[in-house]
Amino acid sequence: MGSLHIRSLKGLPQIAVGDDLAQIIVDACAAQDPPVSLSGEHILVLAQKIVSKAEGATVQLSEITAGERAKQIAEQAQHTALPAQERRRDPRAIQVVLDQSVEILRQREGTLICRTRHGFVCANAGVDASNSPQAETLILLPQDPDHSARLIRARLRQLLRLPTAPGVLITDSFGRAWRQGQCDVAIGLAGLTPLDDWRGRTDAHSRTLTATLLAVADSIAAAADLARAKDSEEPAVLVEGLARFITGEDGPGAAALLRPLQEDLFR
Amino acid sequence: MGSLHIRSLKGLPQIAVGDDLAQIIVDACAAQDPPVSLSGEHILVLAQKIVSKAEGATVQLSEITAGERAKQIAEQAQHTALPAQERRRDPRAIQVVLDQSVEILRQREGTLICRTRHGFVCANAGVDASNSPQAETLILLPQDPDHSARLIRARLRQLLRLPTAPGVLITDSFGRAWRQGQCDVAIGLAGLTPLDDWRGRTDAHSRTLTATLLAVADSIAAAADLARAKDSEEPAVLVEGLARFITGEDGPGAAALLRPLQEDLFR
Repeated sequence: MGSLHIRSLKGLPQIAVGDDLAQIIVDACAAQDPPVSLSGEHILVLAQKIVSKAEGATVQLSEITAGERAKQIAEQAQHTALPAQERRRDPRAIQVVLDQSVEILRQREGTLICRTRHGFVCANAGVDASNSPQAETLILLPQDPDHSARLIRARLRQLLRLPTAPGVLITDSFGRAWRQGQCDVAIGLAGLTPLDDWRGRTDAHSRTLTATLLAVADSIAAAADLARAKDSEEPAVLVEGLARFITGEDGPGAAALLRPLQEDLFR
Repeated sequence: MGSLHIRSLKGLPQIAVGDDLAQIIVDACAAQDPPVSLSGEHILVLAQKIVSKAEGATVQLSEITAGERAKQIAEQAQHTALPAQERRRDPRAIQVVLDQSVEILRQREGTLICRTRHGFVCANAGVDASNSPQAETLILLPQDPDHSARLIRARLRQLLRLPTAPGVLITDSFGRAWRQGQCDVAIGLAGLTPLDDWRGRTDAHSRTLTATLLAVADSIAAAADLARAKDSEEPAVLVEGLARFITGEDGPGAAALLRPLQEDLFR
């Protein structure tokens, strides 16, 4: 309890498909000034985009053919006051969003609020064109971000030869239904407690805490984003001081953070 | 950019109505081991409950008479599988929630998703019985949390005799529509940028970032909550390393984080 420290890693290279992210992180830690000794006390927070790039979870617009629905949505967006450069007006980009979604919850001005294949509810199914070197390339969410986190953690364990590997957290920026702006949330994780469950435990006055289920993985995601700027190419962040949330087992992953459909009051 | 440090303040006293929170924080900073020199580089994060207690934003259940609607909702909750100790089944407690709300968005098992007088969308209008010394006392949200933050900041400026006072952030734990668990968010603030607006600015590849509006005040709220445990009576947290978000002027407050009703797709 009491104190935590968050820092971004400087000087990461551009990530390309097939890159060994764990090796890149280990090398970057050694190259920091002063060098960072990555341990099982650290949580490694990775922006979704570098994981997707390393995994090749990208789509070339030139390879996409827009269907009728995508064309209709793009047509509707034409008649709004959106800035001209909005990529998602491209019917092919909208087709990609539709392909990544199992359900469209809401639609407004070319922005779709989607439930993704993974179960995430977010704008445009997490499909993103910003921070992509090629304007014609869209970056998708990883196929299975919890699996990605487990693979990266296993590779870190192998490289670092540690009894406990760092916790690994993959994050993306999501909007919120009733609040302005985006916050980073956990979309994949390994070796980290997603939810800290205080239900049934008692507070300092021995009162039962009835509804206290803390989304610690989302709080860590939000905290990590504060250590970088969007334009500074710092997709990797280390968090120290939260060893109580790091687990030997990889655990349930960020899937545990999805509200079950039958409890969803706002679809 | 690059590094931030978050710590909770130890040994705060129980807060009672009329207490001078700024003075209590200044005293607590001096009493830390080692002492903390509070400055305009710090963000002071306060849990809503101590602000409400100091302001007397509490209600005695014994003084409440439940109306018909509150009784009906309590009656419905009786027939659910909730734990027996849920206070909000008390029709008087439900009446308090209704009194704090301008709109009930959803209702399930005695939990109400409300829009509060302030415009916050949250469970039970932020009315809380946990961490209250008297079981018969409910703690409300402050009347005007942005005003509370401004008053605390002004008092800190007076006590510390600094050119720039610390940023002040008042937080509460809110649930999310599609994700399990709660994260702390900003309900009041002064001297802090609520939203970091990157719309129209360019990323590292000179691509325009079209939809990047970062809810930094909410991210700071979530980050601060990681430095304390719910039962540890640590309602005050200091954040260092985010001076770029601290402003001389008190600014627009957390009100800027409320999504305008006409943009709300999920009421």
